[in-house]
This record gives sequence, structure tokens and C-alpha cells, in this order.
Amino acid sequence: MGNKVLIVGGVAGGASTAARLRRMDEEAEIIIFEQGPHISFANCGLPYHIGKVIEEREKLLVQTPEAMEARFNVEVRIKNKVVKIDRANQELEVKDLESDETYREDYDYVVLSPGADPIKPPVPGVDGDRIFTLRNIPDTDEIKGYVDQHKPDSAVVVGGGYIGVEMAENLHERGLDVSIVELAPQVLGPLDREMAAQVHNHLRMKGIELYLDNGVAGLADQEDKKKVSLSNGEELTTDLVIMAAGVSPNTELAQKAGLEIGETGGIKVNDYLQTSDPNIYAIGDAIEVTDAVTSNPAYIPLAGPANKQGRIVANNLTGAKEKFPGSQGTAIAKVFDLTVAGTGNNEKQLTEADIDYEVSYINKKNHAGYYPGAVPMTLKILFTPDEGRLLGAQIVGYEGVDKRIDVLATAIRFEKTVFDLQDLDLAYAPPFGSAKDPVNMAGFAAGNILNDKVDVIHWHQIDELADDAILLDVREEVEVKLGQIDGSVNIPLNSLRDRLEELDKSKEVVVYCAVGLRGYIGARILMQHGFENVKNLAGGYKLYSAVQK
Amino acid sequence: MGNKVLIVGGVAGGASTAARLRRMDEEAEIIIFEQGPHISFANCGLPYHIGKVIEEREKLLVQTPEAMEARFNVEVRIKNKVVKIDRANQELEVKDLESDETYREDYDYVVLSPGADPIKPPVPGVDGDRIFTLRNIPDTDEIKGYVDQHKPDSAVVVGGGYIGVEMAENLHERGLDVSIVELAPQVLGPLDREMAAQVHNHLRMKGIELYLDNGVAGLADQEDKKKVSLSNGEELTTDLVIMAAGVSPNTELAQKAGLEIGETGGIKVNDYLQTSDPNIYAIGDAIEVTDAVTSNPAYIPLAGPANKQGRIVANNLTGAKEKFPGSQGTAIAKVFDLTVAGTGNNEKQLTEADIDYEVSYINKKNHAGYYPGAVPMTLKILFTPDEGRLLGAQIVGYEGVDKRIDVLATAIRFEKTVFDLQDLDLAYAPPFGSAKDPVNMAGFAAGNILNDKVDVIHWHQIDELADDAILLDVREEVEVKLGQIDGSVNIPLNSLRDRLEELDKSKEVVVYCAVGLRGYIGARILMQHGFENVKNLAGGYKLYSAVQK
Ligand SMILES: Cc1cc2nc3c(=O)[nH]c(=O)nc-3n(C[C@H](O)[C@H](O)[C@H](O)COP(=O)(O)OP(=O)(O)OC[C@H]3O[C@@H](n4cnc5c(N)ncnc54)[C@H](O)[C@@H]3O)c2cc1C
Ligand SMILES: Cc1cc2nc3c(=O)[nH]c(=O)nc-3n(C[C@H](O)[C@H](O)[C@H](O)COP(=O)(O)OP(=O)(O)OC[C@H]3O[C@@H](n4cnc5c(N)ncnc54)[C@H](O)[C@@H]3O)c2cc1C
Ligand SMILES: CC(C)(COP(=O)(O)OP(=O)(O)OC[C@H]1O[C@@H](n2cnc3c(N)ncnc32)[C@H](O)[C@@H]1OP(=O)(O)O)[C@@H](O)C(=O)NCCC(=O)NCCS
Ligand SMILES: CC(C)(COP(=O)(O)OP(=O)(O)OC[C@H]1O[C@@H](n2cnc3c(N)ncnc32)[C@H](O)[C@@H]1OP(=O)(O)O)[C@@H](O)C(=O)NCCC(=O)NCCS
Repeated sequence: MGNKVLIVGGVAGGASTAARLRRMDEEAEIIIFEQGPHISFANCGLPYHIGKVIEEREKLLVQTPEAMEARFNVEVRIKNKVVKIDRANQELEVKDLESDETYREDYDYVVLSPGADPIKPPVPGVDGDRIFTLRNIPDTDEIKGYVDQHKPDSAVVVGGGYIGVEMAENLHERGLDVSIVELAPQVLGPLDREMAAQVHNHLRMKGIELYLDNGVAGLADQEDKKKVSLSNGEELTTDLVIMAAGVSPNTELAQKAGLEIGETGGIKVNDYLQTSDPNIYAIGDAIEVTDAVTSNPAYIPLAGPANKQGRIVANNLTGAKEKFPGSQGTAIAKVFDLTVAGTGNNEKQLTEADIDYEVSYINKKNHAGYYPGAVPMTLKILFTPDEGRLLGAQIVGYEGVDKRIDVLATAIRFEKTVFDLQDLDLAYAPPFGSAKDPVNMAGFAAGNILNDKVDVIHWHQIDELADDAILLDVREEVEVKLGQIDGSVNIPLNSLRDRLEELDKSKEVVVYCAVGLRGYIGARILMQHGFENVKNLAGGYKLYSAVQK
Repeated sequence: MGNKVLIVGGVAGGASTAARLRRMDEEAEIIIFEQGPHISFANCGLPYHIGKVIEEREKLLVQTPEAMEARFNVEVRIKNKVVKIDRANQELEVKDLESDETYREDYDYVVLSPGADPIKPPVPGVDGDRIFTLRNIPDTDEIKGYVDQHKPDSAVVVGGGYIGVEMAENLHERGLDVSIVELAPQVLGPLDREMAAQVHNHLRMKGIELYLDNGVAGLADQEDKKKVSLSNGEELTTDLVIMAAGVSPNTELAQKAGLEIGETGGIKVNDYLQTSDPNIYAIGDAIEVTDAVTSNPAYIPLAGPANKQGRIVANNLTGAKEKFPGSQGTAIAKVFDLTVAGTGNNEKQLTEADIDYEVSYINKKNHAGYYPGAVPMTLKILFTPDEGRLLGAQIVGYEGVDKRIDVLATAIRFEKTVFDLQDLDLAYAPPFGSAKDPVNMAGFAAGNILNDKVDVIHWHQIDELADDAILLDVREEVEVKLGQIDGSVNIPLNSLRDRLEELDKSKEVVVYCAVGLRGYIGARILMQHGFENVKNLAGGYKLYSAVQK
């Protein structure tokens, strides 16, 4: 087995492959081709440099070509674009972008890590000026340069995915009035609607204008401004536009070379990350992966998988037979004061995959309530209705969200159930958690549903209730003043046992409180006092009303 | 099956049992007996109230007897001490501490959750005044009252466990000069020595005096001060003494009733938390548990297990057959600016249990280094030398320690290996983590040891090296100035390939850097260039020198 390995793309996946490959094999000839002027840069940090949170530009350069060569004896050719894979001759055709000359380089193996390109919706005017995309350092320089120099007043961000939301925040931090235009009825697609609703409310509170369920129909210059026409006919006037409407896998080279492309549009690879040509591996944002939960093909362009895939490919290039176990899409974002995270599948994905699921929420503080600084989080889990196998989780909150999503991601990776969450032996001291951690609590609440200890009803089912169903609000009177579901009866939980005769046992009773805990206790009381059709409103009034706003 | 359940002890385990029991069974007759004046208080918050971090005393009262009765229809009898279990008649003998009268209450089931008592070393003067223990609210009132009123200058804390260290911090926050006296050569017993060394250095930096390897031999009054005599002959003069020398399970009732006691001193229970009398369950700090890693009996007095055990017992009292899966001893503490955490077994425990293990460290930032506020952590994992099954983990660092210990605790609970850590799909965005999270990284570093990619040597083995072994420091020259292992040769990593001929291939070479990463890369280079006896110093110079201080 020869060991001349050519790597296409020198950032997350490519640089990781090269580093591990060298550690495993001092002898291999390793060349990185990178069309851009930098390798190993911090893609994920770009919005924060524009927002001046990361002040120094050099911090974004995790490795330079020189340092990479010195430490790893890897040849790095920046500003060299691979234009063709000649599989028959095992050669790459490369264009030196400075000299404009094309040359060939033979290989034993190729590793494709060319990433993805920002999607530009094909609307009139999309290639005009002051319309930016963000993928690399030059893009960052352009946007930041424009903001620094022109001190614009406003921006429209097209697309409310993670990058769009991060850009909205960072431009807002720079003093701009920011609007987000999003085709879907919500931002942050990995979240389900009621979870996203909490993010919407926070963004609006921070002064971000949201145009949801709305596409961009056209872009035009209007005096010294940009005019953004929306599909519903509205027009926005702004200083600059950020196109953050998702990315599409960079498959041009692979396609031209006749490599198989998956149904999601990414390069198809096997478990060992080999393309349909066994001498060509592919990783990162360019490939289609297997969804670790459904085993369906999926497109999940994230840095964690890209880095880890690079390491696996390097192992496989040096004699190992290591599988990439698929991706869960675990992701997180800071959204102003909020932290928002998800892992596994959401309701949309499960419905599409035709997988039955049940849902449960808890709302709990990140650490002991009596210790200063405790803040709440809404934690949603999705699981199979039979044995309770975890399918996904979403959390919206503040501090401590990242911890719980990682624990849940770990449980999902190991194909565990909601019952397994109940027993997790997690670290507790007042500044860090609770004796029953939110993750344990999520397991308790979900377990109660599966064990028929309580039946739940969801926020979107309230409107479908029979007219004579009783909506029983068990909150304290003072809480009721903050708002209530129309037509509710209020009996505070602690007096429920004494006032049972006020309720008609023959009717359906939906119990609710602020977040679901007291509603659950109330439901248990009713169920054991002869009420036969009792449901607890999952997530309580807080979640219900978040969606109404 | 009757359902009159008497609960002995109304705090973590007892109150949790009562609450869940009522939710499961409206009909059960439930009585909580609590000898003290409060139920459901926040034991774990007590040090922080003394330190005025938790300002309001009422915050410590998570539930009051009245609220518990109102919500859960549970009869709460505070200041009622259970003095005897009459198993033959299925009755408890109870002493009303206010009236001093004794009465009997019959039961179908008893749940013992009487907790533990602070250990007072049997030394002369231990019962003198200004010598405090901390277990409950009255203890807290006493200590805080003394500090508030007398504004003492100094305190000696006897015992450097979690409570001792928390008390040291909180008294220091109140302006006292604090010394910790500890019998063992280190504080925080769950940590291994080199991890504890980092805590020692931090405590000393904060001004806490440590008297390690040192017991208290006697206590006496000396004018208006206390004199604390240590076993090594030293004498300390102080204003007050906190006895935090561990706790012993409260087994008096159980012993008198002839219930089986385990070898660790706790009440023996089966998997369902039943004592040797099937009508009597026991939970919390009073019981012996099974160590989830070794399956050996263990004594692990922590709030998480106590609360969860209470819930399991309530389930089993209402028809379930639920097992407590054993305890891992996952624990965490804030120690001034540090966060210190552990889960599973440490080296001492594994050695005692005669379990072979291997050890690996990584030192990584809590989140992307280029995002502001990144702070390092030292993460140690212990695993079997064959398949790499995780046996334990310890972390010393700042923000983000709690997250990693919980992920590791989850992996240990599910009996996973270091290789499983490599694939964990954890949430990454710059404010929260890295594309390769510290937990992934721990898996990589450990996997390399198991796969013979690198051999490691540990801090305590450096002294045993052959005289002609080469100590190769691959740090940069400027780092060397901060200190070095005696007799080292310095060749910065990036010039190693060019300077190989300076080193003798026939000799043992120990490579080291600051934390182990560059040492590992250096070792890989040497191994592949004909050096046959190469080792990387695990944890690097930072860990090595932490122990020397
Ligand atoms: C603004 C932004 C924020 C992000 N935030 C996060 C985050 O918080 N968390 C997260 O997990 N992920 C985040 N991501 C995604 C993450 O950066 C990518 O998943 C990851 O970089 C993918 O790695 P890759 O190696 O596949 O592609 P890239 O890192 O994009 O590297 C591909 C490289 O290949 C080069 N290339 C392409 N074609 C050729 C060719 N023919 N010849 C030579 N070179 C070529 C490109 O120039 C590019 O530099 C973010 C991305 C962006 C843009
Ligand atoms: C200062 C301090 C800090 C702590 N910090 C932490 C931490 O950060 N994290 C953590 O996990 N754990 C911590 N713990 C430990 C945690 O509080 C215990 O593990 C937990 O409370 C055990 O619950 P339990 O129900 O067994 O006992 P307890 O909560 O102690 O309750 C036992 C109760 O039983 C009563 N009782 C005893 N005998 C009788 C009788 N015969 N009749 C009537 N009543 C009786 C006692 O008065 C006591 O109130 C801390 C403990 C203390 C004291
Ligand atoms: C910079 C870059 C090339 C580094 O790659 P890398 O060398 O594999 O990664 P690290 O520097 O973190 O080192 C990890 C290695 O050190 C080892 N290691 C880490 N700490 C160690 C320690 N204390 N002791 C021993 N080994 C250690 C790990 O085992 C791993 O080696 P392995 O893969 O051979 O097992 C790559 O991460 C990169 O290009 N990043 C920037 C681009 C990017 O990722 N963008 C998207 C996110 S913003
Ligand atoms: C106060 C105390 C009695 C509470 O016990 P509890 O009622 O079991 O606990 P919580 O109030 O957290 O409620 C948990 C219950 O609500 C349910 N729940 C929580 N959030 C919910 C939601 N949003 N929707 C539905 N159910 C929810 C859980 O499933 C659980 O019910 P279950 O056990 O029947 O499944 C007990 O924790 C206590 O005494 N604590 C103080 C003492 C102590 O623990 N000290 C040591 C640590 S400092």
C-alpha cells in the first residue's frame, strides 16, 4: 500500500486528517490543497469576529501553513484549487490560483473535505453589492470591513438557521437594527415549533424583527440602500444583506469524477467514509451521513463530525478498519442571553421518517434554586411510545443547557431509554445542579407517561378539545392574573382535594399549571378520585402561551 | 397489602419518599417522623448560608411541614424521634421531644432515612465550646450566629472532605483566616493525589493553611481562644473549630431492631432497598450501597442517591419491583475559583479492589480557545487495560467541569469504553465547547495508549527512571524558563525531526511538554524513527510539578 495522500480542503476535516495521518505515519507523503488563502481557521468563530467578541483576527487562524508544515511535515498548498479527479490515472488536476497554471499530482489516496457553499436563493439582484455570505476569512473581512467603515444602521439576514441567528446577534451587538427573513414559520429548524417560539420571543425582546413564513423575492438598490422584497409583498429597506439560507455540499469534483452522490445531495460514503471509489475518502460538510437515530441518510454539516471523520479516515489510511457511527446532529447556539440546543431527531424528522414518538417536557432550574443565579430551562425529550427509547432532545434556557444536551446526546448515542435517565448518577452540589438533575427529571416525567401514571395533552391539542371539557388551572390565584387559557376554572393545587366536588367526574379534565409539575400532581389526585378522563397539559401554561405570542 | 407507611427522617430521602408515595397512592397513610425542627431542608446549602452566599435563611427550607401536608396530605411530626422499631408487633416507638412522652404507631411498612451523623474524633476536649459540626439548620444557626456575633478572626476546619473544604471557603469569605487539618496526605479523598495537589495549590494561593497527614490530638481552651493540638506536635490557636471529619451512618435504630448491617457500617439493603426485614426499607446516608463500578459494598452518602432511592422505595411500596442500580459516587464541589469533580473509582479504590487499571490525562480548555473566557481543565480517566472500560474520572478546572463529569458519569453508568468516548456527538459552538470536546479528547488519548500508539509514564515514576534515561523536553525555550525536570534536554517539538541525531536511540527516552499533547506527538515521531523505548509523560510538566509543590 502506497502512502501518498492528497487532501482537498485544509480546514476542519482536511487539517484534522493531515494531523492524525502524520502522527500515525511519519513516512506518508501528505499534501493539503486549499483554494483559499488560509487553512485550519475557526469557521465557527467568524460571526463573533464580526461582532468584535473575538477582537483579534489572528485568533481565528488555529494553524498556519507554516506551523502545520513545521509540526506535521505536511505540505500545504494554499491558493491551489483541485479542479479534477482523474481516477483512471490516480491523479488530481490542480490549478495554482496565483499563477493560473494547472498541474497534476498523482496519489495513492485522496481525501475530499471541500466543505459546503452558502446557498444563494436564485432571486433577482442576489449578486448585487452589499449582499454577503459568510463561510471563510475573506468573507469575514468583507463583512467586518464594510461594517467598520460604513457604520451601517441596519441589516437583513436571510435565513434563520444557526449562522443566521448568530449573525443577527453579532450585527445587533455592532449597533445595527437587524431583521431576519425566514422561509419556514420558525427560526432554527432543528427545534420544534413550540421550542422555537421561545427563541422568537427572546429575539423580538432583543429588538430583532422576524419575518417568518416569508421568502426573499428580490433584491435591488434603492438610493444608497438595499430594497429587500419579500414573497408576501412586503418590502424592507436596509443597508446590507447577509445571505444565510443554508449550505449545499460541495460535490462538484466528486460528481465530475463520477462518484456516487447520496439522496440528500452529499457525497455518498460507506461506514469507513470511502466514496464509491475505494481510493477516495470523503468527509465533512461535503458528505451524506447516516442519521444515528433513524439510520436514514442525512445531511448534517457540523464541525464536530467533520473533525472526527478526519481522524477516522487517517486511521483507515494507516491500516485500521474504523467505522463512523453516524451523526446525531447535536448542535448548540448562543442566542443573545439564551442557549439553544438539540440532539437527535425532532418531531418533523420523526414524522417524515414515519417513526412513532411521544414527547415530554420539564422546566427546571440549572442548579439548586436556593443558590444564587439559578435560571430555568425548558427541556423536551422525544422517545418511542413503547419502550421509551430516546429519539431526540431539545433545550432552551440559559446556563447549564450545554451540559444537559451533552448528557442526553450521550444517552442517545448509547440507544438508551427514558428510564435509564432516571438512574443517571450526575454530579450535584448547589452551584451546579440539583439532587434530581433536569435530566433525571426528564426521565421521571417521561416514565410517568409511559407507565400510564399520567396522560398528557399537548399545546396544539387544546383547540381541539370538546366544548364541555374542563380546563383546570391549579396555579395560585396570583399566577392566574398573568394570563390563563380561556374558559379555565382555577382551583389551586393545595386546595384541590377539598374542592373535588366542584368538578364533574364524567367530563374530560385537562389540568394545567405553569410548567407541568403541579398539573401532574393535580392529575394524579383526580385520577385516583374517580375522574376517568384526566390529562396534564405538557409544559404547562408557559409553553402554551409562548406559542401564542 | 396494607398501606400505612411510617417514614423515619424527613429530609432528602424521607421527604422524597413521601412525595412520590402520595403521588402514586392517594389512599396510603403516610407519616413522617423527624426529630429535628425542620423537614426538607437544603443540607447542601448550609455552608453557603454561613458564608452569606445564600442570604435568606428561609431559602434553605425547601418544604415546610405545613406545605407538605397541604400538597401531599402527608402527616408530618417534627420534633418526634423514633426510638425503637418493634418488628414483632410492627410498631414504632416514638418520643415526642416537646412533651417528652413516648407513644407507639403501628405500620405496614417503615422507610428508614435517618441520615448520618458527623464523626467527632474521640480526642480530649472535643465536646468543648466553639467546636461545631454541621448537619442541619440548628447547627447552621449556631455557627452563623457565632460568626455574626463574635466576628472571629480565625477557624480551624478538621477534615478536608467536601464539607470541610466548602466550610473553609465560606468562612474565608466571611473574613476568617482558615486552616484545614486533614489526617490523609490530601484533601478531597475521592481525588487521586496528583489531582488533589492542584486543589492544594489553589487553596494555599487563596490563603488557606493546610495541615495534611496530620490528625487532631486534642482541643483545649486557651484564654479566649481554642488550642488545637495536632498529632505531629504542632499547636494551632484559633477562635473556633469546625469538625468535618466525615459522617457515620445512623444505624442505631436498625441495629437495635436486629436489622443486618453491612461491612461498610451502613444498613444492608437488597437491590429493592429492603432491609433484612422485608417490611422495612432503608435509604440515603444510612445505608450501604453497591458500587456501580466494582459491585463491591460501598458507603456513599450523597443527596442524589438519597433522593432517587426515596422515589424507588415509593414505587416499590406501590406495586413496582424497581432496583436501585448502585452508586457511582459522582460528586462535585466548588473550591473557590476551582471546580473539582469525580465519578466512579479512583486509583486507591481500584487498587484496594484489586482491579487492573490504566490512567490517562488530558488538559484542554472548556471551550474554543479563540472565544473569550476559555479556561483549562485537567481531566483524568481510569480504565481497564484490556478493553478500555471506563472505571472512573476526575476533573479539576473551572467552568465546564460539571458538564464533562456528567457526560463521563453517563458513559460509566452504561459500562462504556474509552473508545466510545471518541465518537460522542457532543454540542459544539465556540462559547460552549470544541469540535473535539475534552471528553472526546480523553477518549483519543486513552485509545492511543490501549492501541499501543504511545506508551506513557506517570509523574510518580520519574524518580525511578534509569540514570541514563533521556528526559526530552519538547516545549519551546521560553516555557523551559518556567521550570523543568532536572536533567532534561530541550528540543522544541517543531525542530525534533531535524535534530534526531542528538539523541541516542539505544536509550530510554521520556518525552514531555506542558500537558502531554506535544509530548505525545514527539513520542510518535521518535517511535517511528527507530527509537525503541519511548514514553510520554502523562499530564506533562504541569501535572508533574503540581505534585512537587
Ligand atoms: C459562520 C459559520 C459558523 C459555524 N458555526 C458552527 C458551530 O458553531 N458549530 C459547528 O459544529 N459547526 C459550525 N459551522 C460549520 C463548520 O464550520 C463546518 O461543519 C466544518 O467547517 C466543515 O468542515 P469541512 O472540512 O467539511 O469544510 P470546511 O471547514 O469548510 O473546509 C473546506 C475547505 O475546502 C476548500 N475547498 C473546497 N473545494 C476545494 C477545491 N476544489 N480545491 C481546494 N480547496 C477546496 C474550501 O476553500 C474550504 O476552505 C459553522 C460554519 C460557518 C460558516
Ligand atoms: C453541609 C452539608 C453539605 C452537603 N453537600 C452536599 C452536596 O453538595 N452534594 C451532595 O450530593 N450531598 C451533599 N450533602 C449530603 C446530603 O445532604 C445527604 O447525602 C442527604 O441529605 C442524605 O439524605 P438522608 O435522607 O439520608 O439524610 P438527611 O437528609 O440527613 O435526613 C435525615 C433526617 O433524619 C432525622 N432522623 C435521624 N434519626 C431519626 C429518628 N430516630 N427519628 C426521627 N428523625 C430522625 C434527622 O434529624 C435528619 O433530619 C451535604 C451534607 C451536608 C451536611
Ligand atoms: C488545528 C487542527 C489541525 C488540529 O488537529 P489535531 O492535531 O488533530 O488536534 P489537536 O491539536 O486538538 O490534538 C489532538 C491530538 O492530541 C492528543 N492529545 C490531546 N491532549 C493530549 C494529552 N494531554 N496527552 C496526550 N495526547 C493528547 C489527542 O489524542 C489527539 O491525537 P490523536 O488524534 O492522534 O489521538 C484542526 O483541529 C483544525 O484545523 N482546526 C481548525 C478548523 C476547524 O476545526 N474548524 C471548525 C471548528 S471552528
Ligand atoms: C422537596 C421534596 C420533598 C420534593 O420532592 P418531589 O416532590 O419528589 O420533587 P419535585 O418537587 O422536584 O417534583 C418532582 C416530580 O415532579 C415531576 N415533574 C417535574 N417537572 C414536571 C413537569 N414539567 N411536568 C410533569 N411532571 C413534572 C417529576 O416527574 C417528579 O414526579 P415523580 O417523582 O412522581 O415522577 C424533596 O426533594 C426534598 O425534601 N428536598 C429537600 C431536601 C434535600 O433533598 N436535601 C439534599 C439536597 S440539598
